[in-house]
Amino acid sequence: MASGGSEKSVLSRVREYDQRMVLLRHSAALLHWDQETYMPAAGEEGRSEQIALLESLAHEELSSPVLGELLQEAGASNHVGIPGDLNESLLRELLRAHKRAALVPTRLIEELARTAGAAQSAWRRAREQAHFGAFLPSLERLISLRREYADAIGWEASPYDALLDEYEPFTSTAEVQGVFAELQPRLTDLTRRIGESGSAVDDDILHRDYPVEAQERFGRQVLKEVGFEFDRGRLDISTHPFSTALGADDVRITTRYNPRFLPSGIFGTVHEAGHALYELGFGASIRAGSLAEGASLGIHESQSRFWENMVGRSLAFWKYFYPELQRCFPAQLGDFSVEKFYRAVNVVRPSLIRVEADEVTYGLHVILRFELEKALIEGDLTVADLPDAWSATSQRLLGIKPSNDAEGVLQDIHWSTGAFGYFPTYALGNLYSACFAEALQRDIGSLDILLEQGNFAVILDWLQRNIHTKGRSLSPQELCVQVTGQHLRADAFLSYLETKYTPIYELS
Amino acid sequence: MASGGSEKSVLSRVREYDQRMVLLRHSAALLHWDQETYMPAAGEEGRSEQIALLESLAHEELSSPVLGELLQEAGASNHVGIPGDLNESLLRELLRAHKRAALVPTRLIEELARTAGAAQSAWRRAREQAHFGAFLPSLERLISLRREYADAIGWEASPYDALLDEYEPFTSTAEVQGVFAELQPRLTDLTRRIGESGSAVDDDILHRDYPVEAQERFGRQVLKEVGFEFDRGRLDISTHPFSTALGADDVRITTRYNPRFLPSGIFGTVHEAGHALYELGFGASIRAGSLAEGASLGIHESQSRFWENMVGRSLAFWKYFYPELQRCFPAQLGDFSVEKFYRAVNVVRPSLIRVEADEVTYGLHVILRFELEKALIEGDLTVADLPDAWSATSQRLLGIKPSNDAEGVLQDIHWSTGAFGYFPTYALGNLYSACFAEALQRDIGSLDILLEQGNFAVILDWLQRNIHTKGRSLSPQELCVQVTGQHLRADAFLSYLETKYTPIYELS
Repeated sequence: MASGGSEKSVLSRVREYDQRMVLLRHSAALLHWDQETYMPAAGEEGRSEQIALLESLAHEELSSPVLGELLQEAGASNHVGIPGDLNESLLRELLRAHKRAALVPTRLIEELARTAGAAQSAWRRAREQAHFGAFLPSLERLISLRREYADAIGWEASPYDALLDEYEPFTSTAEVQGVFAELQPRLTDLTRRIGESGSAVDDDILHRDYPVEAQERFGRQVLKEVGFEFDRGRLDISTHPFSTALGADDVRITTRYNPRFLPSGIFGTVHEAGHALYELGFGASIRAGSLAEGASLGIHESQSRFWENMVGRSLAFWKYFYPELQRCFPAQLGDFSVEKFYRAVNVVRPSLIRVEADEVTYGLHVILRFELEKALIEGDLTVADLPDAWSATSQRLLGIKPSNDAEGVLQDIHWSTGAFGYFPTYALGNLYSACFAEALQRDIGSLDILLEQGNFAVILDWLQRNIHTKGRSLSPQELCVQVTGQHLRADAFLSYLETKYTPIYELS
Repeated sequence: MASGGSEKSVLSRVREYDQRMVLLRHSAALLHWDQETYMPAAGEEGRSEQIALLESLAHEELSSPVLGELLQEAGASNHVGIPGDLNESLLRELLRAHKRAALVPTRLIEELARTAGAAQSAWRRAREQAHFGAFLPSLERLISLRREYADAIGWEASPYDALLDEYEPFTSTAEVQGVFAELQPRLTDLTRRIGESGSAVDDDILHRDYPVEAQERFGRQVLKEVGFEFDRGRLDISTHPFSTALGADDVRITTRYNPRFLPSGIFGTVHEAGHALYELGFGASIRAGSLAEGASLGIHESQSRFWENMVGRSLAFWKYFYPELQRCFPAQLGDFSVEKFYRAVNVVRPSLIRVEADEVTYGLHVILRFELEKALIEGDLTVADLPDAWSATSQRLLGIKPSNDAEGVLQDIHWSTGAFGYFPTYALGNLYSACFAEALQRDIGSLDILLEQGNFAVILDWLQRNIHTKGRSLSPQELCVQVTGQHLRADAFLSYLETKYTPIYELS
């Protein structure tokens, strides 16, 4: 109805909003990055206030009624189905985000932030004492607030849908449940078969002295070769590795080095590089706005897991890089064969701690959390019953259970920050990565051959063309269909695991 | 007229504005700090946009008509005279800043920013070619815009007053001219007498190989001993040393090391530490707001110059620290006496470049710039005539003149950024530092004795109690009167120089 000229002007006003929000987000990201890397200890209090202000300014922009009107005027719609062009994508994404922000009262946002702040302290204390009771009241309060939050946003089948949507847009609880139902029994079965195989993999070699300087030198070499551009990013050290975008051409990763355990530093670095390569590969046409983000956390994780596991833990990758690693650690690895090293970094062993889990059991840790947090949010499980439910589910899925709360229900920080609906994205990442890897090999041939040649450029180019350049212009499922021709499925990942671990553990 | 309760509420609303502005300024300061230290090269474009947004948000807050009304309602007044309490100080300071921000049209601010951006590129090119003509049109445009800016703010005696006030609040051009008129002939005379003394000081020792690691180790040791708290700050490296406050408890300095010239790193570090100690010493009662800033750039510079020159270039300081320096550089300094080292770091030599100037001639470089920029802004000098005027003034004040524009009128970046009225604060800093040093010695005894003992804590304590804790609650002149009992004067600094350089150069 509006004339061409005024439509353009509405769109450009929307883009101005979008631009300001992105600049505020990137500024806040620097405040966070510095907090984790270089900030002096006493800076904590002031920094928290600075971050809170920038986040509230971004939230004001996003929830602004003026933006709401502009979006309506521009014809934004929340449709599902591959958008016709980037403007349509941007409008859809902004409408989705605007509604989420506008529907939740500021009072509730503030109460969630306050409660989460206190809950994290309670969680830390509780974990130190391995005593869930000290965290219980905080967790109850957070769940109650998160249900209120879900109600404010609105939901049909489950309140968990409204929470999941924040991390995995356009993806329903039922869909996740569907793929996990396919995944879980086969992971549990594979874990059992590996345990019963009687074929022990020796990873003692990884627990030796590995000087940090040499670890870092090797990590930087790998980053350079896989295509991480150091004039567009950095590698630093922090307690918990992360990747963060501070601009279209400034994406930074951190890692940590364990001087007595080699894999932490290497695979932490490669994992974060996977995230960073995604952020550095957004197309020129979407660089400046909200579409320059990952399609979802699941898709983001598909990139980090692809590089960490399908690339970084493959025999072909080590055939290429092992000589360099041996040069960095001649005394430790000089006499150790690449095949034995490959087996060592792929040891499978059911364990209690998610962040230490291997490729096979990792998904089971995630499904455990998904089942429990879904039940908590849907009201089918009380917080008081949570530790027992954790033990029972752990026993059922992994065949082991924690001996105390610290190695069970208190091990992850997520719930104490008020994040529910986040965990499943970790496992979705593995599933997406395997689907994408199938498509990649269909298009450009065997991954193993490319890796053995060190031909990372061809791999990265395929990822950029098919996934990275799209940013957030497609939903995760739309992207999956466009890249693979099919919806998300578990069997690609399961086949990958079977193919890989059958020889390692001499399974029948 | 308003009731006590509602007055309190007005004040607390003013404080909320103030708090937001401070948080935005600190956030922008981190963006700057990172840009100069760790940012990857390609991040430049995005970073500039982020800084511009945060600065414009802070400007919106400051110029907001709502803030203007609140200030009026709270009874803010622009009076001169020591304020009765901190609220009065805060209101006065905010009113002054609000008026400056509200009176200048946004269009003019934006045009200044755009013109300065282009002018800096033009200046860099011009300096490379040592050809003023390439910078001339940009400088003409900037001066015209700055006059417009001064007119928008308003002025009585000189448009230069309106510009100077931004850096040196409540200080008039006439006052600066008065102290400089006292200073200049005696500096020119002292410079001449030193030149004619025939007593050469040998500083070859400073131009040897000084490995950067040892320089940094020594610098950190000095910082620690003078009272720089590393849990409230950092030391990093950047092209141009600076100090920046990112929060009440996060003040960072940078320095640079020249591996073939020892003084750059040491005195750069100590100079910036002086700025940082000021920022770290603001009183608890003013920490969270706009009063937690230096009283003026001149007062700020008084702190850096005090530590760099009156402390760092004194014989007593080196009697304490020289053994440590010799341990860091045994081969270079092992056989060199502390007395000879002291003379070497205090060589006086008229030179063309301000940033390389010694304590005696430095003020003359500043007066040169002050005279010329004042004449440019007041319309008594055309930009076309500037290079000739520079040469003539240099000859008159320093007894030498540049052989080309690069070592003359093009040497400083300031004018290309649109900063006029900034230069005098450098020399005011020296004058204030000497006035304060007199008061300090009157109160706690000989500086030399304290320094020889390494008793930095007593010195810092005096500075904190008398200067740092006051922050911006007093104007520079009010502070000077409160601390020294007198207005700013040049003779304290001149006596200090005479006393110090008479023995070094065996003057009669």
